[in-house]
Amino acid sequence: MGQWLEGKPVADKIREGIKAEVAGCRASTGKAPGLVGVLVGDNPASQSYLRMKEKACQSLGLVGRIETYPADIARLDLKARLMALNADDQVDGILVQLPLPKGHDTQDVISWIDPAKDVDGIHPISLGLLVQNQPCLSACTPRGCLELIRSTGTAIEGQNVVVIGRSLIVGKPLSLMVTNENGTVTICHSKTRDLAGVCAKADILIAAMGKPGFVGPEFVKEGAVVIDVGSNAVGDKELVRRLFGPDAKREGEIDAKGYTWVGDVRPEVIHKAAWLTPSPGGVGPLTIAMLMRNTLDAFKRRRGL
Amino acid sequence: MGQWLEGKPVADKIREGIKAEVAGCRASTGKAPGLVGVLVGDNPASQSYLRMKEKACQSLGLVGRIETYPADIARLDLKARLMALNADDQVDGILVQLPLPKGHDTQDVISWIDPAKDVDGIHPISLGLLVQNQPCLSACTPRGCLELIRSTGTAIEGQNVVVIGRSLIVGKPLSLMVTNENGTVTICHSKTRDLAGVCAKADILIAAMGKPGFVGPEFVKEGAVVIDVGSNAVGDKELVRRLFGPDAKREGEIDAKGYTWVGDVRPEVIHKAAWLTPSPGGVGPLTIAMLMRNTLDAFKRRRGL
Repeated sequence: MGQWLEGKPVADKIREGIKAEVAGCRASTGKAPGLVGVLVGDNPASQSYLRMKEKACQSLGLVGRIETYPADIARLDLKARLMALNADDQVDGILVQLPLPKGHDTQDVISWIDPAKDVDGIHPISLGLLVQNQPCLSACTPRGCLELIRSTGTAIEGQNVVVIGRSLIVGKPLSLMVTNENGTVTICHSKTRDLAGVCAKADILIAAMGKPGFVGPEFVKEGAVVIDVGSNAVGDKELVRRLFGPDAKREGEIDAKGYTWVGDVRPEVIHKAAWLTPSPGGVGPLTIAMLMRNTLDAFKRRRGL
Repeated sequence: MGQWLEGKPVADKIREGIKAEVAGCRASTGKAPGLVGVLVGDNPASQSYLRMKEKACQSLGLVGRIETYPADIARLDLKARLMALNADDQVDGILVQLPLPKGHDTQDVISWIDPAKDVDGIHPISLGLLVQNQPCLSACTPRGCLELIRSTGTAIEGQNVVVIGRSLIVGKPLSLMVTNENGTVTICHSKTRDLAGVCAKADILIAAMGKPGFVGPEFVKEGAVVIDVGSNAVGDKELVRRLFGPDAKREGEIDAKGYTWVGDVRPEVIHKAAWLTPSPGGVGPLTIAMLMRNTLDAFKRRRGL
């Protein structure tokens, strides 16, 4: 029987450090790191994510605000807004909440962000510097995964690390980070053969494919560290009960809101793993903490601190 | 007993295609793709590599030339030369031959190359676009490895691919390309535990660590495709005989020049692999062919062809 690897205590420690450092920056420069979240359209989930990020800024002493544009904002108008944020010295971090509404070219929009303010680490230059193992702003969720792993006392060097999923904000940057940290990484995806067999060789398994309860004990080596990045809204009570066991809280959520959040990993994995993150409550708090960290880092780097 | 996977026939076919396309470009635009190799200092190996690339340009109808600067060229002078090449419309590809002499910051120098002319695919933007799986100029040797694998009729999708080595010009871009082509890639390096065991699970094994004869049969799965990217100058006859067997040609080279070229893979692997590239004579011809391909692609992209 392994241990649950809760995100909050790990995130809280990081947040405390950031809070103290931001206070120090304020004292010495009279300025605070500024983060702008860009919302195009009115997707309720995007709104709620951005509000959480804004709240995190407030609680740590950073200056956070949200700029909202209509879903049908013209390409060049959106570009002009981002250019204005690039030019604004009060703004250290710019994060465009994804997904963008239909009709916008995500790659195009990301390429307009000044890489020095790219706190999501998704601009080509940020990703290229990560490949080169050079200092850069890098994706928050992968950075959070590494913090969670480190918090267990597990070194990454020399470990077999399997990442399921190859997205631009999790799987790909995470695999680059693991290589840079001297881990031996295997990147799996929908075309991987014998996925369970490949995963069952991992000392550290990171599930980030977005499939509710896909990863069961047959994917897990005895004593592995398992990080569940998945965060899936599911409204099917029967499915939730089958994969995640009977859970009054989750069923109540489905009754009240029509869905509940579940991860990619089934909880029974805890009997085989040494550590397993819950979802929600595992990686999520770290993602936001690392966004604050990136904003503070961008602030310091831009001012040569 | 497997088959030797010779590079020349595969490269020749690609070169023929490029030659025809360059002739077509010349006929329709009156212009030919131009490649400039930049040599800083007078390293004889670098000189000889650049001459081979220049010769390849000539034989395929591209315009190739070498610019040589003194090893102690000032940082800003070198930057100015590269900026002039960036601005020169006749120049489609710029390749800075590595390694640079001591005192030059390689990352810095690479960052000065216009990404649209970065035919080695090593600028952060080129690497970042590769992570994003966007159209880009990407590293020649990894592209050549994929061409060699394809030439055997082996699909990359769904295969277990193990890459040994995580350099910026081979291992890292190759692993990104394999992921983009739907292979399941594992990147190994000096810190990997049970390296032979990990490699022995590979359907496709690519050795690119630069250690003479390091990979023996215990690294190889029966029927695997093995690509030897290693190219090591070795002057120790006894070592060469022990790892590569008695070979009058190689011993003659050591007598004449003081060294012979050997790969990372021992030839006895042919008894277990389905395919094995010789070294020299395997990947090398492909690297140069893909450099020509990249220069032609840069020419076309810059002109919207």
